[in-house]
Amino acid sequence: MARSVGGQTWQFDRVFLAGEAAAVGPKEGEGPLRDDFDGIFPTPYAGQPNWEKAEQTFLQYAFDKALEKSGKRKEDVGLFVAGDLMNQITTSTFVARSLATPYLGVFSACATIGEALAVAALAVDSEAETLVAAGTASHNATAERQYRYPTEYGAQKTDTAPCTVSGGGVALLARDSAGGPGRVRLTFATLGKVIDLGAKDPMDMAAAMGPAAADTLAAHFSDLNRQPSDYDLIVTGDLGFHGMPVLREWFSRYGYDLGDRYADCGALIYSPTQPEVFNGGSGSACCAVVTFGHLVRRLRRGELRRVLVAATGALHSTVSAQQGETIPTICHAVVLERED
Amino acid sequence: MARSVGGQTWQFDRVFLAGEAAAVGPKEGEGPLRDDFDGIFPTPYAGQPNWEKAEQTFLQYAFDKALEKSGKRKEDVGLFVAGDLMNQITTSTFVARSLATPYLGVFSACATIGEALAVAALAVDSEAETLVAAGTASHNATAERQYRYPTEYGAQKTDTAPCTVSGGGVALLARDSAGGPGRVRLTFATLGKVIDLGAKDPMDMAAAMGPAAADTLAAHFSDLNRQPSDYDLIVTGDLGFHGMPVLREWFSRYGYDLGDRYADCGALIYSPTQPEVFNGGSGSACCAVVTFGHLVRRLRRGELRRVLVAATGALHSTVSAQQGETIPTICHAVVLERED
Repeated sequence: MARSVGGQTWQFDRVFLAGEAAAVGPKEGEGPLRDDFDGIFPTPYAGQPNWEKAEQTFLQYAFDKALEKSGKRKEDVGLFVAGDLMNQITTSTFVARSLATPYLGVFSACATIGEALAVAALAVDSEAETLVAAGTASHNATAERQYRYPTEYGAQKTDTAPCTVSGGGVALLARDSAGGPGRVRLTFATLGKVIDLGAKDPMDMAAAMGPAAADTLAAHFSDLNRQPSDYDLIVTGDLGFHGMPVLREWFSRYGYDLGDRYADCGALIYSPTQPEVFNGGSGSACCAVVTFGHLVRRLRRGELRRVLVAATGALHSTVSAQQGETIPTICHAVVLERED
Repeated sequence: MARSVGGQTWQFDRVFLAGEAAAVGPKEGEGPLRDDFDGIFPTPYAGQPNWEKAEQTFLQYAFDKALEKSGKRKEDVGLFVAGDLMNQITTSTFVARSLATPYLGVFSACATIGEALAVAALAVDSEAETLVAAGTASHNATAERQYRYPTEYGAQKTDTAPCTVSGGGVALLARDSAGGPGRVRLTFATLGKVIDLGAKDPMDMAAAMGPAAADTLAAHFSDLNRQPSDYDLIVTGDLGFHGMPVLREWFSRYGYDLGDRYADCGALIYSPTQPEVFNGGSGSACCAVVTFGHLVRRLRRGELRRVLVAATGALHSTVSAQQGETIPTICHAVVLERED
């Protein structure tokens, strides 16, 4: 049964990843993690008439594939917890419509998968549910249109600008998982506070989000009385190439050294030599597809035993930015562990 | 500890309303429930330079007042679960920023308070948290600008158009509440599926949401093997004057007669004789302020003993509507009971 540990962390007794999957677009399919994705769509349209439907297709594909890998039936899924970057999280809603299962919409921007996993794990561990799907998606073109400029404008970007990942990721959480080595458990979730140190530049969100990541990681280590060295890998959501040193710097102020156990989903998903990736990947799909595609595969293969995934999100809107507000950010972290 | 009852319902053992409050704007303060609100702001700006900040002020006021009524301190609140209609739920986020407490953003449009209460109750009942705040807000002017036309255009409305409530509502949920008669418990939550029967008119959302309300109510009665007569009052979120007969009709198809125990928050909050209320109240604040202001007061006074609150929401966005999509809807229901 879920219980509170310290000020911000939930501990779970029996929550297993029963199946997980990641679907991505062509740019992600040309990146370093190409062999770890369950589906790579050859075009950004994914066979759909518009980008919004393409984004839904990524999420639907990830759900179907995760379900297939779990060996469960769609009717066994008692709850779908999902969210995304689209206004009114319509990507998740339209996929939920097709699933005909109870649905909780969540939103933490690019940290959404952290929140979705925490809520899903709570439902499973408290025995309110037996099988829950947690998912998210994003699409480069839908995010560009909604948050920035239509891509057709050809607006120039800074090196610190994020490149929204096109993709979708879903994990099925269950109290029991098929036996044998390679089982992966979700053991802790540390819920983040809204952190806002006054950053205003939407083209440099790593600067805004770094402090939120540091705050949640510090709370996690304090709540559990752990050190970074207790993890094989600590992975932030999407601070990217420029954000990683920012976090290292911030985190050293808390007295922690992340050392060589630190990675970032936004820096993992693209190679810096790929065209137009700028600061690296972002978007709510970024952390989800890297976690469910890449990190969980490494856990199942035994290359990693305990990973801390800290999803980061910038919670502003176009209206709040235009009204001169600073960028509030958040980070929700979960621990994934391999059971032998 | 939370447990599953039937296909869509969670049962809670010990979840009490430790304090709850509702703040509203001037139009709601002139309506039939005026004596039940904790705060009535005399202007839609609520002393702020823009409507978005006014919406945040409603939510902040409701939080502060609920906390005051609970006798707890801000530091005792372990989690804030909230959402709203603004793109990227910025109202909730900016209030969460001021609270400096872990935050889960949720979104079910005008059904958001149902989802927030369900998630908050799960966290409390599973003993992951001891005190959780659940809240939401909306503002007529922010919603009009975002979803419809700027009010300055003076666009004509149909009689079936909703009038977004300006206000905010917050409830604090705890495993224990101060003793004595008049304690109110949250005993069940029935989570809704996304229902979409093809309605497309955003000026008649009651027609879209009625079937979702009927679906969740039917699941609730089936899961608990109850009848409408087991409740003193069954209250839908915001189907409004035109939507109430739609729900009665739909619900009769499931074999249930709602009789004279049926009310609707959107129809309760305004008098049909008030100017420009059209179909009645809507917006995520509507169900929250009527529930926390009016219904819980009636429970505490002993006028009601068991109430089923079924928050309804239309989950479309302006983009999904413009792309020709139909309106997906949802209804999340909770049971509030007075303990003697």
